[in-house]
Order: sequence, then C-alpha cells, then structure tokens
Amino acid sequence: MRVVITGGGGFLGQMLARALIARVGLSIGSHANPGLTELVLLDQSRPSSRIDDDRVSYATGDVCDSALLDRVLAPGADAVFHLAAVVSAGAEADFDLGMRVNVDGTRAVLEACRRQTQPPRLVFTSSVAAFGGELPEVVNDSTAATPQSSYGTQKVIGELLAADYTRKGFVDGRSVRLPTIVVRPGKPNRAASGFMSGIFREPLNGQSAVCPVPPDTEMWILSPERAVDALIHAMELPAAAWGWNRTLNAPGITVSVADALDALERIAGRDTAARVRVERDPEIERIVLGWPAKFVTERAERLGFGADSGIEEIIRAHMRTLDR
Amino acid sequence: MRVVITGGGGFLGQMLARALIARVGLSIGSHANPGLTELVLLDQSRPSSRIDDDRVSYATGDVCDSALLDRVLAPGADAVFHLAAVVSAGAEADFDLGMRVNVDGTRAVLEACRRQTQPPRLVFTSSVAAFGGELPEVVNDSTAATPQSSYGTQKVIGELLAADYTRKGFVDGRSVRLPTIVVRPGKPNRAASGFMSGIFREPLNGQSAVCPVPPDTEMWILSPERAVDALIHAMELPAAAWGWNRTLNAPGITVSVADALDALERIAGRDTAARVRVERDPEIERIVLGWPAKFVTERAERLGFGADSGIEEIIRAHMRTLDR
Repeated sequence: MRVVITGGGGFLGQMLARALIARVGLSIGSHANPGLTELVLLDQSRPSSRIDDDRVSYATGDVCDSALLDRVLAPGADAVFHLAAVVSAGAEADFDLGMRVNVDGTRAVLEACRRQTQPPRLVFTSSVAAFGGELPEVVNDSTAATPQSSYGTQKVIGELLAADYTRKGFVDGRSVRLPTIVVRPGKPNRAASGFMSGIFREPLNGQSAVCPVPPDTEMWILSPERAVDALIHAMELPAAAWGWNRTLNAPGITVSVADALDALERIAGRDTAARVRVERDPEIERIVLGWPAKFVTERAERLGFGADSGIEEIIRAHMRTLDR
Repeated sequence: MRVVITGGGGFLGQMLARALIARVGLSIGSHANPGLTELVLLDQSRPSSRIDDDRVSYATGDVCDSALLDRVLAPGADAVFHLAAVVSAGAEADFDLGMRVNVDGTRAVLEACRRQTQPPRLVFTSSVAAFGGELPEVVNDSTAATPQSSYGTQKVIGELLAADYTRKGFVDGRSVRLPTIVVRPGKPNRAASGFMSGIFREPLNGQSAVCPVPPDTEMWILSPERAVDALIHAMELPAAAWGWNRTLNAPGITVSVADALDALERIAGRDTAARVRVERDPEIERIVLGWPAKFVTERAERLGFGADSGIEEIIRAHMRTLDR
C-alpha cells in the first residue's frame, strides 16, 4: 500500500508517518491488507529529523504544484493524507497565503487524485474552526458550518470540494474536523489555539508560558496520538460506512483553561503550573472564543472514533514523549 | 448610485435591470437615496434585446477576467449583483466549466470588489441546491448546507467566500438562496429544475411539454418578480440587519407538480394542461428530488422578504407578461 502525506514534514505529519510505519497492516477496501509498502512525505522543506525506514521517501515543493503532485502520487497512491495548511492565525494575518495554500492547494491535491487511474482515498484534516457565530450550546452532527475565520472558511471549502469530488467518483474523500490538538510538541506555531499546548509544554520544560484568554475559556481538544488514530481510522473505514456524508466531527473532550492548569498542578506540582500567566490577546481571543467547546459526536462514536479519557491522560501522554 | 449586474444578459439579470430602472429611488447605507445613476450589464455576450435607457451600458467578456471586472466596477460601484453562473445540470455535465465560472468567477468578482476604494455591496445569488442528502422534513435557518450537486457545492463555496470577504471588510456581501424560479420565460435552459417552468410556459404557448419527475414531486418555488424583489431588498437592507450571518434562505412556496397542473387546468383549461406529459429522466430526477421542498424561512420574513401567495398567482403573473 502506497501512502502520501502532504504536510508530511509537520509535527502531525511526522507522527502520522511513524504511526503508519508501526502498524503491522493497513486495511483498505478489497485489498488483501497489504500493509505499508511506500510512504511519501511531501512538504515545502525537508523535515529536520528523518525517519529511518526504507519505505519512506521525501518530496519537497509547493502543494499547488501539479507536476510535483503528479510525480508524488504516481504510480498509484492508495491513500493521501492532506495535512498541508496555513494555520488559523496565519491565514487570518495573510489572507492571500491562506487562500492559496488552503483552497488552491486542496484543489490541486484533489485534481491530482482525479488524474489517477484508480482514485485514492483522501483524508482531509478539517477543524473545529468550521464552526462560529451564534452557535447552539452543544454542537452536534447536524450543526451548520458557519466559520468566522478565514482558516475555518477555507477548511469548509476543502470539505465541500472533497465531498463533491467524491460524489463525482474523482476521489474517495473523508474529511475529519479535528479538535484543537493538545499537547503539540516543539516550538509555538501560528495556530490561534497554540497557547493550549504552550501552557503545558513550556512549564514542563521549565519555561514560562502565556495564556492569552481568560481562565474560564473552554476548549474542545484531542491529543496528537488520538488525532493520528482518527486520521488512520478515517482512511481505513470502508466507503459505505461514510455514505453520502463525507465530513465528520471527530470526538474530543471539553476542558477549561482553569481545569487544565489544575490538572497540571496535580501532576507536575505548583511551581510548574505557576509558570503560566494570563495576558489577554484580543485577536487570539476573538478567534478562539468563536469556536465551540461542547460537542456531541454520535456519528463519529458509532463509526468507532475515540477520544482521550481526560486532560490528565493527555498531560501524562505528553510527559512520556519527553522521557524518550 | 452605480450598479453592476454580472449575468446581466440573462433572463433574471434583464428583469432585475428593468426593475432597478423602474425604481424611483434606491437606498444604500448613509447615501441620501440617490437613485440609479448608472447600470452596467456584464455578460459573456450582448443580450438580444437592449434596454432603452441612457443610464444602462453593456460590457461583454469572461467573468473571470480581472481587468474587465476592474473596468466595469471602476469608478466606484455602489452595488454588484453577481448572477453569472453555470446552472445546475450544466455544472453537473461539465464539472470544470462549473468550477471555473461558479467558483473562480465568484472569486474574481470578490477580488475586484476588494480592489475598490469603497467596498461595494455584493448580492450573491445562491440556491436551494445548497441543501441535499438526508435532510430534516422541513429545512430551517439553521439547517446545514450539504449540497449533493456540483452546482450546489459551488454556490455554497461562493456563500462562504462572500461571508469571509465581508468579515475581512473587503466587500459588504449578502447571499440569497433562491428557490426554483417559476415561470422562467424564453427557451429552456440547462437548469435541472427548468421543467417546472416548461410545464406552464410551453402549454400556454400552445406547445407540448415534458415533466421528467413523478407528479407527486414537490418543489420550493418563487416567481421571477418576487426573486427580483428579494435581490433588491437584500441589497438595500443595512449591513446591521444582516449581522454576522450573510447567507439567507429566501421565502418561497411548496408546490407539487400535480397541484401545479391542476392550477394550470383551472386557469387555462383542460386542453392546455393536457399538453404536459410525464417522461421520467433519472438524471434530472436525481438532482431535483435531492433538493428540499419544505422550508421555514423565519429570518427572511423577519427581515422583510416575501413570497408569492400561491401557484395561481405565479401562473397569472406569467400570463400577464405574455399579453404585453
């Protein structure tokens, strides 16, 4: 089985790659569970750390480059994970860049899939940012997508295109709206929700962190490990399980910043938790407070998607990665 | 007040142009109700009949042509009605043409608006085709857009873009999801719902007509006169009335094909109604039966949008146009 990950140099792409390699088998449709034979990681630049496995190769370039995409997908990709994106605060700061990468890039990937002899499965990473404006108290599977950020708008456009390309038989698309991923490792990125990782990551690393939103702010979150599970599960599910509706709200958990800091204190001590200070940022607040924090994800649960048991599990999972 | 209509050569564009000319005043924001001073009709070819009014001018070309759009919008369009589109069965038959005109064309119009010194009001004609799949019995203002046609997908993408361009301050956008327009005059077009006009238009003209769907098929319809009213009202409403939600389901009425033919018989006689025969077309049926026919349009009614009183009013209005 041949798999392509766009944004394969990013943290989630790298985690997904390692998870795919670790899997004994990968199931896809009527294929006889052949396992992973080839994995191509496409990104705008080479990742600093390489994965030591001879099934893995790297491709570098622009996700809008059709010729590059054709080279990467041929001969015959079975599955494409489309993760490449300009994140929320980035797309808000540079509207044109967001449109180019998040809309034109997704179109280029869909068109490259369409040019394949056998349309591959495509897993598109969408986001809780699909929702905004005046929302019901709890978002459910039939809540309308009303994004209030350019990132959210561009992600919903990607979902719509993936669904229509699927309906036309050009690709076998599956869009997963991921909660905010916590704890992201590494340096802060331009995601407006990035602080929700920083308030764990930095204190556990002996550094101070800023929380730009009030402590009673609730977030809808998922650990990177569970997010990777969700993406692989989305790919492995048979097309019939998805049916006509190719977009799904992934499960997550609702956690307030205050509860998160309490959990950090319980696990890592008062001094660690005290490294976080609140310094409100109106722009971040506007984006993040516009996202819903409470979901009922019946369809995802029925289809076998899962979430973390609670914030402590998420913190402990992150701490285990630090021990490696 | 300077107004631009894309698709200004089409039937709805022409009707809208005549309605704008007939209006004594047009209100827009804080402007002192200056009335119409200039009206530019943009289309891919010149309309066969010209409107005899020295405020009206014509522009011919591709809606994706940025230089053309800049010429048409400058100097300072106050309002743009974006009607240019590839219709439903057309976008289904030629996917790439639909994407080019309905997505890229809308983006080009939004970008041209963004380049103006003063962002114009933009009225975007969306459609009931925004809805599809497994729908609630009655669609309401919070029903999620889940299009099941390329046309519907492309229209929802246009709504999302217009909303985000509005949020960014690039334009003052308003998207109106119009019901199926009945009775369209002139020749049949490639709209999958075109038969719903044909079953009145052709018999009243002494010709036979084909109904490609079962007689119990219900449709959500609006007369062209009311549709034009809705577009002008959408433009005239102050931005505050729209608020954060720039997309609206316009009111309409629910009519079954059988009820429509009964009404035709009552008004025009048995011989006229007998000119319609049912000859089912699976492709048209698939598209049309996927659209919802029952709506509650509370928000539109609260904002002052209106619908026809019933199918008889619609038939009689069409017959009056034949007498002219």
